[in-house]
Amino acid sequence: MSGCNEERVNREVRRKRRAVGVAMGREPADLVLKHASYVNVFTGEILTADIAAAEGLIAGVGSYSGREERDCTGKLVLPGFLDAHIHLESSLVAPAEFVRAVLPHGTTTVVTDPHEIANVMGADGIAYMLQATEGLPVDVRFMLPSCVPATPLDESGAALGREDLDGFYSHPRVQGLAEMMNFVGVLAGDESVLEKLAAADLAGRRIDGHAPDLADGGLNAYIAAGVRSDHECHDLKDAIAKLERGQYIMIREGTAARNLEALVPLLNEKYGSRCLLCTDDKHPGDLLKTGHIDAIIRRAVALGADPMAAVRAATLNAAQYFGLHDRGAVAPGYLADLVIVDDFQSFQVEAVYRKGVLAAEHGAAKPFPVPAVEPRLTERARHTFRVGTLTAEDFCSDSPLGVVGMVDGEITTVDRGRAGKPDAARDILRAAVVERHKGTGHIGLGFLQGYGLKSGAVATSISHDSHNIIVVGAGEAECAAAANRVAELNGGIVVWNDGKPVAEVPLDMGGIMSGEPLEMVNEQLESAKAAAYALGVNRGIDPFMTLSFMALPVIPTLRLTTRGVFDVGKQDYV
Amino acid sequence: MSGCNEERVNREVRRKRRAVGVAMGREPADLVLKHASYVNVFTGEILTADIAAAEGLIAGVGSYSGREERDCTGKLVLPGFLDAHIHLESSLVAPAEFVRAVLPHGTTTVVTDPHEIANVMGADGIAYMLQATEGLPVDVRFMLPSCVPATPLDESGAALGREDLDGFYSHPRVQGLAEMMNFVGVLAGDESVLEKLAAADLAGRRIDGHAPDLADGGLNAYIAAGVRSDHECHDLKDAIAKLERGQYIMIREGTAARNLEALVPLLNEKYGSRCLLCTDDKHPGDLLKTGHIDAIIRRAVALGADPMAAVRAATLNAAQYFGLHDRGAVAPGYLADLVIVDDFQSFQVEAVYRKGVLAAEHGAAKPFPVPAVEPRLTERARHTFRVGTLTAEDFCSDSPLGVVGMVDGEITTVDRGRAGKPDAARDILRAAVVERHKGTGHIGLGFLQGYGLKSGAVATSISHDSHNIIVVGAGEAECAAAANRVAELNGGIVVWNDGKPVAEVPLDMGGIMSGEPLEMVNEQLESAKAAAYALGVNRGIDPFMTLSFMALPVIPTLRLTTRGVFDVGKQDYV
Repeated sequence: MSGCNEERVNREVRRKRRAVGVAMGREPADLVLKHASYVNVFTGEILTADIAAAEGLIAGVGSYSGREERDCTGKLVLPGFLDAHIHLESSLVAPAEFVRAVLPHGTTTVVTDPHEIANVMGADGIAYMLQATEGLPVDVRFMLPSCVPATPLDESGAALGREDLDGFYSHPRVQGLAEMMNFVGVLAGDESVLEKLAAADLAGRRIDGHAPDLADGGLNAYIAAGVRSDHECHDLKDAIAKLERGQYIMIREGTAARNLEALVPLLNEKYGSRCLLCTDDKHPGDLLKTGHIDAIIRRAVALGADPMAAVRAATLNAAQYFGLHDRGAVAPGYLADLVIVDDFQSFQVEAVYRKGVLAAEHGAAKPFPVPAVEPRLTERARHTFRVGTLTAEDFCSDSPLGVVGMVDGEITTVDRGRAGKPDAARDILRAAVVERHKGTGHIGLGFLQGYGLKSGAVATSISHDSHNIIVVGAGEAECAAAANRVAELNGGIVVWNDGKPVAEVPLDMGGIMSGEPLEMVNEQLESAKAAAYALGVNRGIDPFMTLSFMALPVIPTLRLTTRGVFDVGKQDYV
Repeated sequence: MSGCNEERVNREVRRKRRAVGVAMGREPADLVLKHASYVNVFTGEILTADIAAAEGLIAGVGSYSGREERDCTGKLVLPGFLDAHIHLESSLVAPAEFVRAVLPHGTTTVVTDPHEIANVMGADGIAYMLQATEGLPVDVRFMLPSCVPATPLDESGAALGREDLDGFYSHPRVQGLAEMMNFVGVLAGDESVLEKLAAADLAGRRIDGHAPDLADGGLNAYIAAGVRSDHECHDLKDAIAKLERGQYIMIREGTAARNLEALVPLLNEKYGSRCLLCTDDKHPGDLLKTGHIDAIIRRAVALGADPMAAVRAATLNAAQYFGLHDRGAVAPGYLADLVIVDDFQSFQVEAVYRKGVLAAEHGAAKPFPVPAVEPRLTERARHTFRVGTLTAEDFCSDSPLGVVGMVDGEITTVDRGRAGKPDAARDILRAAVVERHKGTGHIGLGFLQGYGLKSGAVATSISHDSHNIIVVGAGEAECAAAANRVAELNGGIVVWNDGKPVAEVPLDMGGIMSGEPLEMVNEQLESAKAAAYALGVNRGIDPFMTLSFMALPVIPTLRLTTRGVFDVGKQDYV
């Protein structure tokens, strides 16, 4: 063992010695939560004791005194919550801003898949997020993006092979391989896909799944290949088939997809121990209004879930699944990540301790240092656009193009045939996806029906999963102007009208995140939404989020890509 | 990633591809258990399906055909059983012989602590056992001995510091640090003890406990230091205090200690998921007569346990605790370690598959290659005695010595005062512990009361935990002769009378294990027991096992050590 390791051992010995001394009552604790009614996730009981913390650990439950004491009489104390699957980028802000938002809600660990930034920046995107989360008061763990690009059709900023991921497994905050969306590749036995699974297995890490409605032999095959969880279940049948085959089920309740109501019956004695909670995506307004994992627990209890099962799903189960054996319980030796709430019904978080230190109280996170990201990566993140100046001509076409029909409240689309030109009367608008990573000049043209815009244009560099520029406009010139403005901002959302941007959300970190505070980004976003609706956008549609999914060539029926309109069912361009 | 790793990845990819192909029904399975009623440890149900295996893995549950098919109609199929804590040396045979005995009982994984051989040979003992278990059809996993020597009083063959253990954590079959018996050291914050805990934690491995009746602050401290399990609970109160604080409870039912009846109420919904099964020690006759983990499940069910909880304790729970995520369930991607039994009541094992290959049937293991141990270690194991020829004078003393009073059916002792010489009328016999590892010439003299021997002598090199020679005899010359014979055999059990050995069990592997088949060793042992009883040994006492514990200076009241009679309560020599 090297000298460096000797130091680690010595540090750990000192930490243990102090925890032992505090547990034995030989020395005062750093913190004691007095008279706490705490949730014992092992026995499913609420027990009352003093909880003593030292060196960031819970040293003991019993009768203790400490340098700092907080009376918890009448309060409920729980282990800090874990979000088992999220893409931090969806918050549109830097990780530190995300943390500032969720910490007051009791979240102390999140497991993120930096899939979005990796589609822009590849391995540098993963490195960027690792650095931007180092030492934050919410412990941010990583699953490595398994599907970059998301499909072979995608023109993303990078492609990540197994070799690109391998080096990250030695990072202490990397827990495994993120959602294997390419279940078709798994079932076909694709070399490049199985290689990624094999490498994760050999590194002793977890493999998350993403396979809605896969069943029978296909489901067996997908799981036999090593995929141990799923967060795409939208009904009990699907979830139970997966639970029976040993997958952990992440019950997802986020901004875009919400499965809690359908899956809440799983939170019982029979299935509860194999369930986790996750959000997948949380947008700025939703984070500010709804909260985070606390909101899922509260809603689960309101829907009739056993509160113990809901808490276990948010704590111990997730910790076990990810091999994070130091957390998820109020017990000696566990991290002193502790959440104080009023009761299970109201479930308002009063205070949050992270490693025994008060980290948030009454809805506000305590100040914390923002981690430094090396300048090379920051510079790279701020300059991800390689696209020439666009003109109206770029958006014109002589031949008829596919018409993608939008559906209110959905991200699926319908096939509206072909059109030769825009048709305001039938709400058929010019739309395009502009490749922006590599300067290929690829511009995929088509039409959107049902978006509702009456004048100007809307463009955004959030377009799943490759995050090229997707633009829709009342005219070709407006399309060009809005897209040019997005590139000029080094990314963002632009609502263009009357020859100028009437609203914009600059997202100059990879073209998908802002460096500004969450509240400001939310205001910008709300203003931009209002501006888009004012220009006529159909109120049944989220002007930017729904638009961003029009570029994802895995959801039926028609999608707009950098090479034109693609028919997902026929797996061919229109 | 090195070329060697590339090969591992490629091999794993091929394995996954075939498992996927079989799961999809594209190619026949290697093995199919048809119409199996299998125990689903995830849902607690018995489901019926074909179980298809390929490449040693379960590829799918459903409807399958294969190259080999076995009709399991009316049978129950379970995952292979795990023994969570055992010292293989207690079987008195080589690991391959142990495996031959337990495999037909459905055991497919055991977690051993090579504490006994390590007390003789130190790190070489661990290496010896690792090599002697490589590739066996029962997967033998290791916890590294944490307390060698067992106490500072012990004159063992070796002392293992943290640095001696560190290198073993990189071995793929080492799961952690074995039972930390020195809870006094943990609670005192001893550097050398905490170092071992710290190193195990930093290696990301498990730490097993051993702390009967530790409670309150002491228990908090012990657990806060990182100890995550206990197998010494003999009542529910003790077990529940530990479960509440997050320890896993290994319910022990072995040859020497049996806690199942007291702890069987834990095998329910509330506590069951944190319970494991273990034997700790299994002696030859018990292995042959009773069986192994199957016998514990059978008895647990007979005692009223929920069969599902009993099976989970023997499978999934143990696998989870040790981080063996590839086993413990009948589900895709799990090892095809499968046990076929008739029903829960009779619970007779019909056949056992290990990695999809028939490994045992109707009580008999299929032949398998015995792993080779490097000659250096074999030679070292066969020559562990450094002791000169003893004479009657070595066992004489002018001054009075302590009298250790034996108790029928117990391994505790009582203080019978002092004596100047043996006294047949009062059943006070000359006894000694002869240091045999390092040629120190230390011979600790004393008297045993209650053993019952009327003539001759009994000597054994199994004497806990240092495995020096313990001898008791009707006369000093007999003591010397019996002890000399043990050394001449390079270890073993000797019953001496009339100037010759009347029975012996040669144990020339470290002085604690035989190279002979289990049945033969058992016969030798039974003959030796009969010979000892024929010489008058008290039938309330096991002539060798009870004797072997007389040297363990941690159990009250008096013990015999290489430096004389020791009072455990007073922590001083008599």
